[in-house]
Amino acid sequence: MRPVSIVGIAMRPVEKETRLSLRELGASVIRDALRDAGAPRADAVFAGNMLADELQGQKHIASLLADAAGLFGVEALHVRAATATGAAALRMAYFAVASGEADIAVAVGVEKMSSAPPTPALAKALDAKREVPTGATLISMNARMMAAYMQRYNVPYEAFANFAVNAHRNALTNPFALFHKPVQVEDVLASRIVNPPIRLLDCSPICDGAAAVVLVPDAHAGRFARTPVRVLASSVATDRFVVEDRPDPLALEAARLSARKAFQRAGLTPADIDFFEVHDAFSIMACLLLEASGFAERGTGWQLAVEGHIFREGRLPIATMGGLKARGHPIGATALYQTAEIVLQLCGEAGANQLERARFAMLQSVGGAGTTILTHLFGRERPS
Amino acid sequence: MRPVSIVGIAMRPVEKETRLSLRELGASVIRDALRDAGAPRADAVFAGNMLADELQGQKHIASLLADAAGLFGVEALHVRAATATGAAALRMAYFAVASGEADIAVAVGVEKMSSAPPTPALAKALDAKREVPTGATLISMNARMMAAYMQRYNVPYEAFANFAVNAHRNALTNPFALFHKPVQVEDVLASRIVNPPIRLLDCSPICDGAAAVVLVPDAHAGRFARTPVRVLASSVATDRFVVEDRPDPLALEAARLSARKAFQRAGLTPADIDFFEVHDAFSIMACLLLEASGFAERGTGWQLAVEGHIFREGRLPIATMGGLKARGHPIGATALYQTAEIVLQLCGEAGANQLERARFAMLQSVGGAGTTILTHLFGRERPS
Repeated sequence: MRPVSIVGIAMRPVEKETRLSLRELGASVIRDALRDAGAPRADAVFAGNMLADELQGQKHIASLLADAAGLFGVEALHVRAATATGAAALRMAYFAVASGEADIAVAVGVEKMSSAPPTPALAKALDAKREVPTGATLISMNARMMAAYMQRYNVPYEAFANFAVNAHRNALTNPFALFHKPVQVEDVLASRIVNPPIRLLDCSPICDGAAAVVLVPDAHAGRFARTPVRVLASSVATDRFVVEDRPDPLALEAARLSARKAFQRAGLTPADIDFFEVHDAFSIMACLLLEASGFAERGTGWQLAVEGHIFREGRLPIATMGGLKARGHPIGATALYQTAEIVLQLCGEAGANQLERARFAMLQSVGGAGTTILTHLFGRERPS
Repeated sequence: MRPVSIVGIAMRPVEKETRLSLRELGASVIRDALRDAGAPRADAVFAGNMLADELQGQKHIASLLADAAGLFGVEALHVRAATATGAAALRMAYFAVASGEADIAVAVGVEKMSSAPPTPALAKALDAKREVPTGATLISMNARMMAAYMQRYNVPYEAFANFAVNAHRNALTNPFALFHKPVQVEDVLASRIVNPPIRLLDCSPICDGAAAVVLVPDAHAGRFARTPVRVLASSVATDRFVVEDRPDPLALEAARLSARKAFQRAGLTPADIDFFEVHDAFSIMACLLLEASGFAERGTGWQLAVEGHIFREGRLPIATMGGLKARGHPIGATALYQTAEIVLQLCGEAGANQLERARFAMLQSVGGAGTTILTHLFGRERPS
């Protein structure tokens, strides 16, 4: 197995509604990421997209983007894992380089959610026979988890407010973020209820975006234009598909298993992680992932928010560039935005958002209601 | 890079309309393939499916199938390349094992096309902005290619009839095939015109099915129950997405590039291939692939059919278990059926369909109108 590094990144500013077509969005970040790497070509393009089947009437998305980027002949495949789709594209590009099948692989994610209301298509991440017919959506499943959590651990609603406050604060100085408005705890508490107990400011927004990263073998990384960032681990685990089938729906077993595999592979522990790009599609999901991944005891993830540890100056900064909540969550692109942001942080290029200490980073991506979870670990150097 | 072998296979009989659900179809072949391998577990499941978004209202298919198969915790990702989707799942499982990320990987394909008319969803393999609005479908694009071919090379319609005759003859004795009825040249000529010049018997059928294969490193292959078959090469290439943009729409550049890469990787030439599981979704596509992959000069692929070389006793048997045409083409599953059939042939287990000489085999899979093409080469032994 060849160790893998990232040597190129690109992001489009996240928008409420882009004027670009899906192919223009995707092609532009493929080209920009290759340019950022100083790479003359790519051997393979792995594309993440969740909703184009319904929203743009377009399948076969990887080849479409590769062609639009002018990469005639290149390998191009489409990878998905519901709302974790961007991370699945990253993992496949990692496979391609690690296996020796590609020397330069692009992982690209693109989503254009503004074309039509995406909620029904998003709900297809749940069980079409057993969950969707009950009226379940991704929001309602997160709402049920949040209500169960508040009741079981006797936690008030306001305990979660800092997840949104932190995300919006970090997005303020990220030029690629959708939102540039500060949010206070009172704003969260006053925002309208979307699906009780979830309020608007607990939710990531519907938006358009694209991001890409370029992966190469460590051994070649010195040939490229950008300081390399090492992929220290990549892992996936799954839980019982239907939330109701899980012994404890608040346990997020897939996160626990996926994080454990990744830490073992990298030779790291949660204590080594300097910042965590978490899947904060909903505040409750961020809270549960902090617990399942080993950063907090069960029932205490919210304390990291309340006590300010998740802020940039805290001991475990999360969503350092705005997160899904405030940078935006264009589904298939999200994990590639997060990866690019991690690269910026690790290379000291995060501008106003730069962390003082950024040696090892964790990315976690959630497909469905905690069903498929991918964990990636990154560092400027491999742990000795 | 670790060399990879196949040590388990499973197929469901292809049906016009199955009584099983999508998850039951997929889970049954995952379990059966692991049982065939004598494998106690799997590390990863890579699932191919093209149409469930529309036809079953279900995304997130890999995790759904993994859970239905009882593989709690396992890695599960969904891979697609339009109508070549099954081969994309095979390639991703190959990546996972070759890279060292998985020791036992399952590639599974499943498609249930009977739930609703699939033609509109299938057409999303074409360009939603530039091709579909003109009324183009996969059938009409193949019809245009066939008409152009007949005109350019002055070939009569009946020159293609043996593609269907061969496929139906081979399906007769394949218990997993959809069709078990002999077809003569006259039947092809008398079948109704679907999209001129394509007649019904030039087309693969709409159907339901599932198949799976188990991949492991060569070095572990001796531990499993089935005689291993080596994956000698796996490759992908793409053409210009829109057929009209190609300098020569009859050239199938993606097939040429993909085959060339695969032959180089395996150290083989077309002359070494004993049989070819070709993507005969339409007769014209089989003809063009024979040419682009180096088995016939441009404009002469049909001669291999007319002269009987594609039959089981010919010098390049194709579709030896019935092919897409007569075994059936449940899209996401098709390449996994073909892989399983290749394993049977190479291991001398193809029953009445057994070839006398079956040392090296080729599989080729086409996404869209020749846009994304995957080539896989297999053998009982690695070429010396």
